[in-house]
Amino acid sequence: MTDERWARLGLAAAQDAGDADMVKLVRDRGAEEVWDYVRSGRGRTTLAQRAAQIDLAELARQTDAAGARFLIPGDAEWPAGVRDLSWSDPVGGFGGEPIGLWVAGPADLGGLGAAVAMVGSRASTAYGEHVAADWAVGIAERGHAVISGGAYGIDACAHRGALAADGVTVAVMAGGLAQLYPPGNSALLARVAAAGAVVSEYPPDRPPSRARFLVRNRLIAALSRATVIVEGAVRSGAQNTVSWALSLQRVVLAAPGPVTSAMSVTPHRLVRSGEAILVTSVEEILAALGPVDSAVPDYQRAVPTVLDSLSAGQKTVREAMPARRSVGVDELCAVTGESAPSVLASLGGLSQLGLVSQPSPGLWRVVPRPA
Amino acid sequence: MTDERWARLGLAAAQDAGDADMVKLVRDRGAEEVWDYVRSGRGRTTLAQRAAQIDLAELARQTDAAGARFLIPGDAEWPAGVRDLSWSDPVGGFGGEPIGLWVAGPADLGGLGAAVAMVGSRASTAYGEHVAADWAVGIAERGHAVISGGAYGIDACAHRGALAADGVTVAVMAGGLAQLYPPGNSALLARVAAAGAVVSEYPPDRPPSRARFLVRNRLIAALSRATVIVEGAVRSGAQNTVSWALSLQRVVLAAPGPVTSAMSVTPHRLVRSGEAILVTSVEEILAALGPVDSAVPDYQRAVPTVLDSLSAGQKTVREAMPARRSVGVDELCAVTGESAPSVLASLGGLSQLGLVSQPSPGLWRVVPRPA
Repeated sequence: MTDERWARLGLAAAQDAGDADMVKLVRDRGAEEVWDYVRSGRGRTTLAQRAAQIDLAELARQTDAAGARFLIPGDAEWPAGVRDLSWSDPVGGFGGEPIGLWVAGPADLGGLGAAVAMVGSRASTAYGEHVAADWAVGIAERGHAVISGGAYGIDACAHRGALAADGVTVAVMAGGLAQLYPPGNSALLARVAAAGAVVSEYPPDRPPSRARFLVRNRLIAALSRATVIVEGAVRSGAQNTVSWALSLQRVVLAAPGPVTSAMSVTPHRLVRSGEAILVTSVEEILAALGPVDSAVPDYQRAVPTVLDSLSAGQKTVREAMPARRSVGVDELCAVTGESAPSVLASLGGLSQLGLVSQPSPGLWRVVPRPA
Repeated sequence: MTDERWARLGLAAAQDAGDADMVKLVRDRGAEEVWDYVRSGRGRTTLAQRAAQIDLAELARQTDAAGARFLIPGDAEWPAGVRDLSWSDPVGGFGGEPIGLWVAGPADLGGLGAAVAMVGSRASTAYGEHVAADWAVGIAERGHAVISGGAYGIDACAHRGALAADGVTVAVMAGGLAQLYPPGNSALLARVAAAGAVVSEYPPDRPPSRARFLVRNRLIAALSRATVIVEGAVRSGAQNTVSWALSLQRVVLAAPGPVTSAMSVTPHRLVRSGEAILVTSVEEILAALGPVDSAVPDYQRAVPTVLDSLSAGQKTVREAMPARRSVGVDELCAVTGESAPSVLASLGGLSQLGLVSQPSPGLWRVVPRPA
């Protein structure tokens, strides 16, 4: 591990999540300097005391034991959506991009694309559970990841639906990954970890707390293109996730229900206030994601490059060229099955575009591209 | 009956409803001239043929037999909201203020105030019927009239709810009042006629038709301050009422329901399109009516008059004065129990305001006010 990663591992374990001051300090001074500072006993007392007790090697061992990897900003797998937390408004005094993320499971968080968060009440009704599971199946079947928490009720149904469709589903935890909470969902969350991912910004042995649930909600909103609220009573934790989604300029969607159901009070209120758009089907949810490639969010989508302008023959020749050595026309003819004049014409075009060079007569090689 | 009323009775019976050309002609030339014209066999053939067959005395007898009265624009009971049809856009080629209205029942259509239309599917669900009846009870309990059609399903539940709350409810028919349609609702509609009103722009013996249902819908929208759609399948007649309400710049409200219910498709679509506001309670419905006196719409609310500025003594004296003869101070003292100086002071103030005159010394009388 790099010094940066060790430092972030220590800081992520020493702080409590959503500490916007810490995030700002790390951004301004770098993780290593901040870690050295708190580790030396300076800085806020509680932070310094916690930092003094951290055994980084032991923390790495616990991470391994939980089947987890520790991601930091800049990693290929660092989720693009989470970066938006660096500019979004704080909610309830918390905010900021995480110092690091513990992740377990095969899902690539860097390639979640236009994911859909589905949240709602733990005390869900049969109606809400049906809707959550049914929509999660449809969302997953169409290739979109589902994001939720790990709670009973709507969260659990969202994961079950996505798993039933062999889709990608991600559970964001309010505590460490060594013991997935709540225990009653441990079998379900183990399936989520086996097929998708479980995610936490807390070290493996950290228990969940009320504050951690609220800060956790910003990751659910940030990892998703849109947040669907399926059910919520008049006072609902889902409202907090909605606030994060709006702060992140994400789309908020709400499922209507019977006016006689206390569990539809929050979705209806969000529609009436204009904070959420009423949706009644998977098609309407996906339409709300905007005109996007389902796998790649706008800000990650490739800008057209010179490679997109190549002819079929040029592409064939370019792909046939070895990466690290020069090659003759004869060899390219053999590999591509094209005639020598055809290969030479393609090489001429590629040369004009600056994609290949001719280090010596009759020999060609690929020009390395900037990373 | 005046010549104007006889002429409108004939024209209302000769035409089919929603004939915007006829309405325009009547407005421009007057009902009597138009009636004479079509009655003399000129004008459109079908209209002239129908007019030739009309026996006005028989029509008046049929109106009486149906327990109905025939209202025309200018009557005190002519509903204020219906006047808005003179400027609202036509829907489906129909439109216009009615030539006249047949009304049966004790409700005063001129004093409906901020009434609420409640419309929806005939093939309603138990959920929709519960919501319609429950809301109609609440609307009626708070002193607002309920307006609907006479159909099975939501219409019937709206009337039942308003009747249960001893409220005013009005059923607008798509055929004449001699035979209320559908026959299966005749007992309910008889109760509506006994406690509120049944209304039609068709002569008593005219059967309903598909076109008459569509034109009828404009009266439901026009008689109401807001239209609530409770349930409607993907293709719903309620959509037509909504179009009329929007054309009349009325508020459209929609009840959400389970996304799994085909009967909630139209309300949800109206909310998504922005045509309707989602409502979940009677309080939200009444709030959507705006800040109005529940009994009197804005455009009917009394402008403050000189009478509002009278002192208590002046009011007492004025109310004690006989309408059609002069009166002495002694008599006013006896009736009011006030002293002579007090009565004289009040008479002086009333005289200054032009409300009483002194036809001869010691005698006072009320100055007749313009109607």
